[in-house]
This record gives sequence, structure tokens and C-alpha cells, in this order.
Amino acid sequence: MKQVSYISLSVLAVAIVACERSSEADAQLNTHVVAASDSAISFSDTVRKLAEKIDAQLGDQIVVPMPKDAGGGYTHEQHKRNAKTIYEAGKLYEFTGDDRYAKHVEKLLLAYADMYPSLDLHPAKKEQSPGRLFWQNLNESWWLVYTIQGYDSVKETLSADAREKIENDLLREVSKFLSQGSPETFNKIHNHGTWATAAVGMTGYVIGDNDLVEQALLGLDKSGDYGFLKQLDELFSPDGYYNEGPYYQRYALMPFVLFGQAIEQNEPEREIFNYRDGILIKAIYATIQQNYGGLFFPINDAIKDKDIATVELQYGVAIAYDLTGDPGLLAVAKAQGQVVPTKGGKKLADAIARGKAEPFAYTPMRLRDGALGDQGALDILRASTDPNDLTVVAKNTSQGLGHGHFDKLGLLVYDAGHEIIRDYGAARFVNVEAKFGGHYLPENNSFAKQTIAHNALVVDETSHFNGSTNEGNQNAPELGAFFTSDSLQATSAAITTAYDDVELRRTVAMIKDAAFAKPVIVDLVEGLSDSQHQYDLPYYYNGQLVETNFDIEADPTSRRPLGGENGYQHLWHVGESGVVNDIAQITWLLDRKFYSVTSSVPENTKVIVAEIGANDPNFNLRREPAFIFRTQSDEGVSFASVIEPHGEYNPTVEYTVNSHSTVKSVDHYKSDTASVVMIESKAGQKVGLGIGRVNDDTIEHSVMVDGEAFVWTGPYKIFHSQNHFDGGK
Amino acid sequence: MKQVSYISLSVLAVAIVACERSSEADAQLNTHVVAASDSAISFSDTVRKLAEKIDAQLGDQIVVPMPKDAGGGYTHEQHKRNAKTIYEAGKLYEFTGDDRYAKHVEKLLLAYADMYPSLDLHPAKKEQSPGRLFWQNLNESWWLVYTIQGYDSVKETLSADAREKIENDLLREVSKFLSQGSPETFNKIHNHGTWATAAVGMTGYVIGDNDLVEQALLGLDKSGDYGFLKQLDELFSPDGYYNEGPYYQRYALMPFVLFGQAIEQNEPEREIFNYRDGILIKAIYATIQQNYGGLFFPINDAIKDKDIATVELQYGVAIAYDLTGDPGLLAVAKAQGQVVPTKGGKKLADAIARGKAEPFAYTPMRLRDGALGDQGALDILRASTDPNDLTVVAKNTSQGLGHGHFDKLGLLVYDAGHEIIRDYGAARFVNVEAKFGGHYLPENNSFAKQTIAHNALVVDETSHFNGSTNEGNQNAPELGAFFTSDSLQATSAAITTAYDDVELRRTVAMIKDAAFAKPVIVDLVEGLSDSQHQYDLPYYYNGQLVETNFDIEADPTSRRPLGGENGYQHLWHVGESGVVNDIAQITWLLDRKFYSVTSSVPENTKVIVAEIGANDPNFNLRREPAFIFRTQSDEGVSFASVIEPHGEYNPTVEYTVNSHSTVKSVDHYKSDTASVVMIESKAGQKVGLGIGRVNDDTIEHSVMVDGEAFVWTGPYKIFHSQNHFDGGK
Repeated sequence: MKQVSYISLSVLAVAIVACERSSEADAQLNTHVVAASDSAISFSDTVRKLAEKIDAQLGDQIVVPMPKDAGGGYTHEQHKRNAKTIYEAGKLYEFTGDDRYAKHVEKLLLAYADMYPSLDLHPAKKEQSPGRLFWQNLNESWWLVYTIQGYDSVKETLSADAREKIENDLLREVSKFLSQGSPETFNKIHNHGTWATAAVGMTGYVIGDNDLVEQALLGLDKSGDYGFLKQLDELFSPDGYYNEGPYYQRYALMPFVLFGQAIEQNEPEREIFNYRDGILIKAIYATIQQNYGGLFFPINDAIKDKDIATVELQYGVAIAYDLTGDPGLLAVAKAQGQVVPTKGGKKLADAIARGKAEPFAYTPMRLRDGALGDQGALDILRASTDPNDLTVVAKNTSQGLGHGHFDKLGLLVYDAGHEIIRDYGAARFVNVEAKFGGHYLPENNSFAKQTIAHNALVVDETSHFNGSTNEGNQNAPELGAFFTSDSLQATSAAITTAYDDVELRRTVAMIKDAAFAKPVIVDLVEGLSDSQHQYDLPYYYNGQLVETNFDIEADPTSRRPLGGENGYQHLWHVGESGVVNDIAQITWLLDRKFYSVTSSVPENTKVIVAEIGANDPNFNLRREPAFIFRTQSDEGVSFASVIEPHGEYNPTVEYTVNSHSTVKSVDHYKSDTASVVMIESKAGQKVGLGIGRVNDDTIEHSVMVDGEAFVWTGPYKIFHSQNHFDGGK
Repeated sequence: MKQVSYISLSVLAVAIVACERSSEADAQLNTHVVAASDSAISFSDTVRKLAEKIDAQLGDQIVVPMPKDAGGGYTHEQHKRNAKTIYEAGKLYEFTGDDRYAKHVEKLLLAYADMYPSLDLHPAKKEQSPGRLFWQNLNESWWLVYTIQGYDSVKETLSADAREKIENDLLREVSKFLSQGSPETFNKIHNHGTWATAAVGMTGYVIGDNDLVEQALLGLDKSGDYGFLKQLDELFSPDGYYNEGPYYQRYALMPFVLFGQAIEQNEPEREIFNYRDGILIKAIYATIQQNYGGLFFPINDAIKDKDIATVELQYGVAIAYDLTGDPGLLAVAKAQGQVVPTKGGKKLADAIARGKAEPFAYTPMRLRDGALGDQGALDILRASTDPNDLTVVAKNTSQGLGHGHFDKLGLLVYDAGHEIIRDYGAARFVNVEAKFGGHYLPENNSFAKQTIAHNALVVDETSHFNGSTNEGNQNAPELGAFFTSDSLQATSAAITTAYDDVELRRTVAMIKDAAFAKPVIVDLVEGLSDSQHQYDLPYYYNGQLVETNFDIEADPTSRRPLGGENGYQHLWHVGESGVVNDIAQITWLLDRKFYSVTSSVPENTKVIVAEIGANDPNFNLRREPAFIFRTQSDEGVSFASVIEPHGEYNPTVEYTVNSHSTVKSVDHYKSDTASVVMIESKAGQKVGLGIGRVNDDTIEHSVMVDGEAFVWTGPYKIFHSQNHFDGGK
């Protein structure tokens, strides 16, 4: 048995030192090209498409308006467009040598140099951190990150006068404003701060101002208490996890990798990519690992269809490949469908064309959360390296700040390219004006963040931490062992602070066993308490309900909301049922496969069938079904479930096989220190999972199962009828 | 202007004569291999996979049980398996020359020859048309179609004794039973009859019994009033359309193409593929044309995920390619992902490997319905030859017998690979035992067949023909003109018999015009009547509701069924609204695109938002949303809508463009003989569609639009603000 508590990336960190370094600034750009549907990636196409876009603008008048509008408004969008153009035209000059592009960049930069010194704070300034070109300081940093790269591309073509004007009146001015002029953001240990330090630091390198570089790296006072290095220390966990989750991780990644690359190129002696045991590369890899079928795990506030083709990760992959030469990254670039038009992007495209791509090593892993790695973890179980194979995400992370959801010990299950047991993600249609201006919808708070919107245990119809983000941020789960072997992957976690007097515990395991045609998932959810409570455990299944081992008393002619608050007001009560012999079995069909959940539930548990969509007069929520186990108990609860993909529904040739679950029963046996979840297949085979309560390899556990002691040492143990019942272990 | 009333396949029919003919029986088989996800098709892989399957059985005992069980039972399934094995092992012998396969076929055939003569009618016989091996005559025909091909493959390896025994005791016996022994099926002009004539005729060729062949071709009395040729005359329309719709068309296709090929190979002088102006090839092409994104149009009873990889169409494509050499068929074979392991399949695979594939010519077309082509039509509009481009299906067909749905003048709209305005298809989970044994569900009758379940006009909450299939079968729509040019495709139809005193009319057109970034669809639905009625026009939109130009009074805390019968009992009343200024505009989001329907509706029209799923205690129905225009009127109604794909929602790079409809208004103007649907864009451009009521190129129409006469000749005319309002036409 091998216990794995963090991903092993030190190999990569070592590899980095020996890797060739790209000799020049490897700037990047966002071409806004939709991912190609096939895997052909041509670098010359990339450049050609970009040239088409920029060529169309070359004849146009330069438009550098006085700042006026807030986010989304005309002057805001125009200044964004200009930064992109400066950057992209600069890149085109680099790759084509065509002087027209350099001239265009020069014209834009001179126009900004004319205007910038006269600018006061933006008239529509956001209270806390205004910019001068933009209402928000963050946008100004973003603008400079793009602009400084464009300047770098063309500066060799400029006259000394032009350089002086641009550097003094524009680049230094903006840098000073973003650093000394905005200390509250610049010194912040937050991704807004990283945008600022990256912008200022990159500018420092390009214009040869070491003072700016030092401030960017070490904070305004150069003490090292703030600045980029401190941000690297604190914003990622030791495993490269970003605590708001993957949706914000890929966004936060951008300034980190860009500035990281600039440091490497200008001061290789800093070995920035070895900093903190290779944290930058770990962060890129952790971002990639947090996707299924190309889509990021949608935990916390997340747009569910955000995919790995996002430009931030295109940069990340190009930079990481340049450093590591890992051929698995080429498979990621292929899946992204395009590369950034930079030297790094060219290197990717060329290597792909030479057939060097190998499958990316999607791997079961524990990504610890928190700067010190002690704030819970995101645990990922994977049946194989195939990105579309059975995958489980156990959300044992910390709250994740303001974008966090209240699903402590939440669960997501994927199979065959689909979400099988779903997370709602954020209630938001990004940039869709008709949907609340594209902002987070009111239903994001009233539903999507609430515990009942997730596959997580709810006590007394209230959300974890009573829905208080502050309280959530102060209380992370306590992790149990994370274990992985060929036949078993397992993780456990517990939290005592989500409710006043109920401890939540969950163990999720993936078992590959001859008793089942395919791997199955064991999901043991416990609420430990001595007082009277109601427990709701929802599973947001994805598909068409096919079979239950109980009769659902549906409400065929009326519907009512399941409750009044904490998200319950958004669920329709569709039907409910008692459970026969405390075993509930529910089967659904999705695409061409069947999925069953077979659960041992407490006595008098009801199954409620629910559907999202009540109290949603603006049609802001997706209609998605769930079943919810509901139990009243004064001695706590345990729900022991097997989640099982099975069979095939093939409409092409019209056959269906194994549409019924192969699980006959599930039982949960307990001792003071451990549990055994015993599964019996319909073919009569028994497979048991022993779960020790504490993460200790040396503790021996004994659990009585039908009068027989099951004994093992350590956190997890698989028992089989063919050995255990022969007396073996 | 070019008016197109049928597909022009005579070119193909001519081409056939000159085509090379394959020299041997080109038998086929169903490998039950799931379609490969990439387009690589290797014939040696096809043979290898088949060999793996059959090799695993070679050592097994032959199992030929006494017939006992009904469909789905053990003996039923075993006899099906045996026929498949006879056929597949025969094919393997042909392709590998390995004697083990021939021996296995011989053993099975001898075992059947031992048993068959002693068999009486099947003990679980279906009343009307029992078999002897199977409960149903149809299964027996199917069995013989496979078995005779297997016998043909290996007969050269058999001793004279074995051949005599197999031919006399088995093949002749089964043939006699299926022909003289089952005249009611054999002489039936129905696809069951085609299976019987194909089985008997193919057997006649293989065992050299011309009498069987003649009976198969011309009927038991050889008069030509029955039999395969008559079936060819009557079961397809002159355009190759099969009147139950594409789902059953691809099933019915199988015996036609197999027997057709056998006739061609044995009696080429019959020129069977030229018969009835090339009807067999037309039927294959019509089957292909009736798909979108690989899935057959789900009109009538249809499993919605039935795709073109279905084995029947694999045969069809192989046979059609062998005859025509049409490189577009190679693209279809690539989309199917595999080929049948026959000489025809090999020819496909080899040609694909040589890079000969070209895009299949998906084309707007009218597929007339009925043996004489006078029973309505399925009208298909396509924005381009791209199978995933904007496509409209106007269901102006006849009822389609027992599997027909009551949606006269129904509508389906597809775009970007998705159904945008959906047809429910059948309420059935084929072969899923827990779902009513895999049969059509009760909800198929109570919902899926009813008019309100479709995008079709409903009068007084009753279905067309009062839900009587008999009445439906006797009354087809009257067709208006079908027109296609670069900028306009249009079709019209009317029916006076769906309701006692309401005539239904619908014109659907696709317009490509500079006023719109992409093609738009005009949908004019009229109910003509002098008496008081309620009219409901549903649109089953697919996606997330984003924007409406009216406030929906949703029922946030309760739901009730929309009605009590005729399918209404299965719809939830979700909300409703009045319409401002008689213009309703509804926008939804699907995947990465927006879709708007902008409709000019009668005064006092309500918009009802509905969702499938009421009175569905067994969760048999899919939850899908609709909006329904509801109007009470004593002078008929007209709903003139523009259906408009627009914009892009790109979560990868987080931008959204053109999320709002570009249509400002739609107006409907009428004269006694014609209509003008006038669209005004938000940019102020006007585009009008003139629609003449009768299908006559010579009639002049004049419609007053805001005091100005719009005049044109013929069924359709596009007017533009830039010419019309300058006085031009």
C-alpha cells in the first residue's frame, strides 16, 4: 500500500534546470479564435489569422479616447482593444518583420504617451481601487501587461526620441501609478496584486528599470513581505492549487506565468521556476488536472462550459512545455485546438506536427489547499489516464473566499465524457446582457451557493456555516488518508464546524474488482450527532430516471417548492417514497450508459425526487433533477452508497445490455474506530471496503460483520468474499 | 426562379448502367461494433474484429433449441444469434479462406435441417402471422435472409449429401413456409412482406430454384399483383420516401437493398436498379438526406438517437457506392465510422483510404409522399451542404400509418449541430426492460403522438383528425410550391381535413439576405375559419430562455397541468403572459448560439410557457420546455414568425456578441390570394416575403403594405427595402 499525500512534481522541478531556455521574450496573445474541431494545429495558420485581423485595422484612424465609461462601456472597451492591438501587432512584427505592424504599435503608444500624464483618476472610478484609463486598477494592470509586451516587440524600430517619450510619459507613468500610486493593490496578496506586480515588473525589465523590478518582486518597500514572490508563497497551495477553485485558478494563472517567464529570461539566476519547489509549474499542471473532458471542474462560482482552451492555459501550456518538454503537454495543446502565436506556441505546434504528442498523464491526486497545504484538499480519483474515463472529485477544500460554495465534502462524478452526478456551478450567463447584465444572478446566492444545491449533506435545511462566507473561510475540513493503488483509490475527510453539533464525514473510494465489470464508487456519508436533526443528502443525477426499487409517489398534477429558504425554495417537490428494507436503488440512463446508486440508508428514510426551477420567474436556473435522501434522527446518520456505471444502451443497432444494477445490496458496519461498507453483487460476490477513522498506517481496526470480525491495519482495506470468507485477508 | 418538385436522381439511374458490377454476392453483416470516434476506417480491422467474435464461439457446442419462447426470450434470442453466426462465419470464410468457419456454418445448418421439418407453428405464436422458429413470421424471414447468405458463402465446401440435406430439409422448407405457407404476409404490400419475398427470392437464387424467385418477384400467383416488384412500386414514393418516416425507412430499406443486389447479380438483365426510375437508389439517398448531424429526423414514432451508422444504411451505402461510385457516399461511410465486411464494404474502405471522399451533397428537397407522389411531402430546407448547418424540416407528409403522429404541417429546426425547435419523437426506451419492457410507452399515445406535443397548430385542444389514425391515413395535406434558389428556399402546404371547419396552412421559408448576418426562417402559420375556436401554436425550443419582450407571469410556487387530455395533461403550465403590440419576441441560448423567434400574433394572444412532465408518475417523459401562442378567435388566426439564429456565447474566452435579436418587427399583410410577411431589422432594413396561395407560376398577386401595393407573379417573391422602396421589384 502506497499512501500519497501530495502530487509528486519535484521530478519536474529538477527537470526544469536542465531544460533549454527560450532566448527571447516569449510574449503571448489572445487571438479569440474558437478552438478548431480537429486536432490539426498549424503555426502559420495562427499567424495568418492574426494578420488578417490586424491588417484590417492598419488603415484605420488611431482611436485613443479620453477615459469616461465604466466596465463594458465604449472607452473601456476601446482601451482594451488598443492594448490587444499593441500586443498583437507587436507579435506580428516579430514573426513577419513587416514594418507596418511596428509603425502601428508606435502610433498607438505615442498617442497614449500624449494623453496619459494628464489623466486623473477615472471619472467612473470604483471606490476601492480606481485606475486612470479604466474604472478599476485591475484593468489598468491588464492593459500594461499587454502593452509592455507589444512595446518590447517593436522598441528596436523606434527612434531614441520616441522611445524616451513612450518610456517616460507612458510606461514609467503607468508603472508608478500601479506601484507607488496604488499601494493597497500592489502590496495585496491577491490575484489583483499579481496583475499589478507582473505589469510593473515586466515593464521594469523592458525599460531597464531595476527599481521597478525589485518592487514588483519584493513589494514597495522591497522587504519581501509583499510582492510577486510573496504572492507565489501564499496564493497557491504547495501542490499548486488555487483556493477559489479551477475556474478562478486558470484566470489567476495568467500574470503568474507571464511574469515568471520574464524573470526567467531576464534573471535566469533567480531560478524562478524552481522557486518554492517549482510552484509555477505545479500550478500549471494542477490547472490541467482539474478538468474532465476538457471542462474545468465547476466547483464554487464557475461557468460550467469554461474549457481548457482558455487563453490563460494556452499560455501556461506553452511556457510549461518550453521548460519541461513534457510530451503530455502536447496532447493538452491538441485538445486546446490552437496555440498562442509566440515562440512557445510555435514550439508546441512544431512538436505536434512531428508526432511527438503523448497522452497527458491524468492521475488520481490530492491537491492540498491553503498556502501551507493544511486547509483541506481537492481530491481527484480517476479510473485511468483517459480524460473521459470514470472520475470522482471530492471537494474537501476550504471555503474558497467570496466565490466559494457551501458544499463541504461535496461530490462530483464523471463518466464517459459526461457529468453523471453534477455540480450546478455558478448561476450566471457571463456577458449575456439580458441575464442581469452578465453578472452573477441573484439565484447564485439564493441557490447555487447553498448546500442543498450540491451533492453534500444538509442538516436541518440550513447551509454549512449557516451560509456565512467568513465563518467558512475560517474552517477547513480535516483530511483523512488519500490512497491510491491499482485496485483502490480512496479519500476521506471530516468537518466539525459546518454545523454546531453535527460532525460531517465522507469517504469516497473507487474500487476495481473482478466482482464488477467496471470500477464502482463507494460513497460513505455520515452525520455524527447526539441530538435530533433532519438530514438531507442530495444526488443531482444527470439523465433519465429508468428504475427504482421503490414506488415513487409522484405529484402528477401539482408541484410545490421543497422549502422556503437556503436554496430549498428553488427546488420543486416532484415526488417521494419510503425505502424498502433500508436499501434504495435508483437507475438512470445518460447517453448510452446506465448509472445506479444503491444505498444503505437509515430507517425511515424518505427519497424525495426534486427538480431545480421553483421560484425562478426569470428562468435563470437550469432544470436539473435530483433525488434526496431525507432522514430524521437523534443519533446521527450514515448513508453508504455504491455508484455504479453499467451496461449499454445502443440505439444505433438497437440493443441494450446490463440495464439493471449488478449490486444486490450494500451494508454499513461500524466499530468505534472504523467502518466496513459491504457490497454484495447479484452474482453473489461480496466486496467490502474497510475504512479506518484516522489517517494512521499503524492502527489496527476490527469491525464485526454478520458475527465475524473483519480486521485490518491502516486507513483502507479491500475484502473479497473469495479470500476473506476463506479466512484470508 | 427555378421550381423544384422532386429530387433529380435520374442522373444516378443512368450512371448505374455503366457502373462496374461486383462479380460475387456481396453479402453483409452486422458487427454490432459501436461507431469509431475518428474517421479512420480499416477493412482489415473490420475482418479482425469479426474474427475475434466468431473465434470465441468455434469451440462451443452448437445450440439449436426447440422453439419455445416469445420475442426476447431464450430460444428466440438463440435462433437470432445462430443466424448471425451462420452469416458472419460464412463471410469470414469468404475473406480468410479458413475452413474452420465453413465447418461451423455447416454444423449449424445441419442441426437446423435436422429440426426444422418437424416443427409446427411456434407455441407462442402471434395471432396473425406466426413463424415456426419464432413467434412471428417476420423473425423467420429475417432469419432466412441471414442464413441463406451464410449458406451461399460456404456451399462450395460442402459434400453433395450435406448440400442436399440443408437445401431440402431446411432452406426449401423455410422458403415454402414463408411463401405458400404464409400467403397473407408474403403477398402483403408492407415491409413484413418485403422481408418474406427477399428471404425467399435470395434463397431461390442460391439454391437455383427459379420458381421461388418468380414467386418472390411477382407474388405467389406470379401475376405481378403482389411480390417484390409490386412492393417497389407501392412502398416508396417516386422520390424514395417511405411513408412511416425515416426511422422506419432505414429499417424497411434492408430487405429491399439486399434482394435488389441479389437480383442484380443473378439476373442483371432485369436492371433492377433502374426499376421505377431507379427507386432503390433513390430510397437509399432519401434515407441519407433525412438526417441532421448524423441523426435521422425524428418525425413520427422514432428513437431520437438512431443515427446513420445503423447497419441497414451501412448496407445501403456500400451497395449504392458499388453502383454509382458517388464520392459523397464515402463521406457518409466515414460518418458511419465503419463499413460492412463485404466486398462493397472493402470497396468503401479502400476508396476512403485513397482519399477519394468528398462531402455528401446535402440538399434542400421535397420528398413527395405516397406511391404516386400525391400524398403530401417531407420538405427539407438547408442553408448549405454542410450537414450541421441551419436546416428546416416541414412535415407536410401523410399520416404514416400506425406509427404516424398527428402533426400535420409540423416543423423542426436545426442549427449548429443541434435541434433548435424540437420534435419529441417516440416515448420509448427501446429494449430497456424497466421502461415498459422496452416497448412504446403508454405516454407515446397519450403525449408523443398528440398534436400539442409538436410544433403544429392545435385547434380547441384536440389533436388533428381527432386523434384517429384511420382518418389521418385518408387525408394528406395539399402541397403548395416548393422553391429553391440561392437566396430563398420555401415550401407551403395546407390541409382542410385535420379539423371540421378549420383549414390549416403553413409556409416555411429560409431567406439569405444582406439584412441579416445569417439566414433566417420565416414561418407563417394560419388557421382559416369563420367560427369561434381556440388556437394553440407551440414551439418546443431547446435551450435556456434568455429574454422575452414581455413579462412572464410565472407560477413560481405551484404548477398545474395545462389541460386534461389530448396530450395537454402532460404539460405543466409554467407561466403565461400577454403580448405587447401583438409582437412577441423570445430568445434562448443553446450551446454557443442564441436563437430568437419574433412573431406577429393576433390580438389578445397569450404566450404560455410550458414544460413536458405533468401526469408522468413513472418519469417516462423527457422534461422539455415550450412556449405556446394561444388565441381565441371567430375569424381564424395567423402567426407570422421569424426564427433567427444569432450571435455567439463564448465561455472559453468569455465574450458574447449579438445576444439580442436583430429583428425589430414582423408584420403580416394579406390579400385574397396572397400574403406578405414583412420583417424589419433593428438597423432599419426591410425584407418582405410574398407568398401566393396557389402553386401557379403565372398568377399575379398584389398585397397592400402600408398603403403601397406589393405586386409579383408566382408563389414566392422576396422584397427588399433597397429595391422595393425605390419602386423596384
